[in-house]
Amino acid sequence: MIYRIPRQDRALRTENAYLDAFERLISERGYTNTSLDAIAREVGLTKAAFLARFGSKKAALLLLFDRYCAKATAVMEEMALHIPTMPSAEAAIYELSTVLEKIQLEDFAPNRAMQELFFEELKVDQRTQKIFLELVDLMRLVQKHHLEGVAYTDTGAFSGSQILVSVNFNYILRAMPALPRDHDTRHRMIALMIVAALRF
Amino acid sequence: MIYRIPRQDRALRTENAYLDAFERLISERGYTNTSLDAIAREVGLTKAAFLARFGSKKAALLLLFDRYCAKATAVMEEMALHIPTMPSAEAAIYELSTVLEKIQLEDFAPNRAMQELFFEELKVDQRTQKIFLELVDLMRLVQKHHLEGVAYTDTGAFSGSQILVSVNFNYILRAMPALPRDHDTRHRMIALMIVAALRF
Repeated sequence: MIYRIPRQDRALRTENAYLDAFERLISERGYTNTSLDAIAREVGLTKAAFLARFGSKKAALLLLFDRYCAKATAVMEEMALHIPTMPSAEAAIYELSTVLEKIQLEDFAPNRAMQELFFEELKVDQRTQKIFLELVDLMRLVQKHHLEGVAYTDTGAFSGSQILVSVNFNYILRAMPALPRDHDTRHRMIALMIVAALRF
Repeated sequence: MIYRIPRQDRALRTENAYLDAFERLISERGYTNTSLDAIAREVGLTKAAFLARFGSKKAALLLLFDRYCAKATAVMEEMALHIPTMPSAEAAIYELSTVLEKIQLEDFAPNRAMQELFFEELKVDQRTQKIFLELVDLMRLVQKHHLEGVAYTDTGAFSGSQILVSVNFNYILRAMPALPRDHDTRHRMIALMIVAALRF
C-alpha cells in the first residue's frame, strides 16, 4: 500500500497535466476545430501514444468533463446543506445561480466543448444528465422548504433546472446579451423567473 | 413602368430560387460546414457567378435572413394590434411565444445559420438586433396594457425578450430537453417566467 498510493498519485498528476494542456488548446480553438494531431502535439505525445492512453479525442474530453462534474457535484452537495436554512426560495435560487455561473466560467472550455459535442451528436451525454438530475434534486429541496402549498411537480423542478443551466451558460457565451449586465440584477431576475417555474 | 415591374418580379423569383436552394443545403449540413463550392453547385451557378451575384457566402445568408426578418416583422406588427385586447399579460406572452416558436421552426435553417455566424464572429448582426428591438416594443405594450402599477423598466422588457427568443430557439435546437414537451404546458410556463421578468 505504501508504494501504491504515490504511484497512483503520480499517474493522476501526469494525466491531469495532459488534460490541462488539452483544456488550454480547446479553450483557444474550440473542440470541433481542434485536430487530434494538434492535441497530441500540445500535450507532448505522439498521436499513437495519445490514442493508446486516452482512446480518442472524445474520450479525453469526457475525462476532462469528469473533473468538472466532480467539482459541480461537490458544489451542489454543499448547496443541499444550505438550502433549508435560507430565508426564501428566491434567495436560494439566487445563490444557486451565482454559484453555478461561477463554476461554468471557471470550467468554460470543457462546458463549451460538451455543448459542441452535443451539437455534433444531438445526444445528451450521461454525465451531463447526472449533474442535471443533481440540480433537479436541489430544485425539489427549494420547493419542499420554501414553497409551501406548491403541489410537487416534476415539471417545475425540471424546467427550473433547465432554465438555470441554459440561461447562465448562454449568458457566459454572450448569446444572451440583452440580460442585465449587473451581476446582482441578473441573478435576482433569474431567481424570480425560476421561482415562477417552480410554482407551476 | 409596364416592363419594369415584371422584370423586377422575375429577378426576384430567380433570386428566391437561388436562396431556396441555399437554404435547403444549409438546413442539411449547417452553415459553417457548407462550402461555397457546394452552395454554387447546388444553386446551379459557377462559383464565380455565385460570387458576382451575391458577393459572398455570408452576404447570401444575410439575404436569406432578410426574408425571415420580413416575415417576423409582419407577425409582430399583427401581434401589436392584438396585445391591447388580450385578457392578461400571461395570455399575451403565451400567444407571442407560440407565434415566435412557429416562425423559428418554419425558418429554422436561416435562424440556425445566423447563430453559427454569431458564434464565428461573436457579434450580433444588425438584422437580429432590429427584430429583437421590435420584440422589446411588444413587451413594453404588454407592460403598458396588462401590468398596471409596474414601473416601466427596460430591464424587464429586454430580459423578457431575450428569454423568449433564446428559450424557444434552444428548445427547437433540442438544447433544452428538460422543458415540458407538451406545447400548451411549455408555453404557459414560458409565459409565467416572462411575466415575472416583466414585473421586475
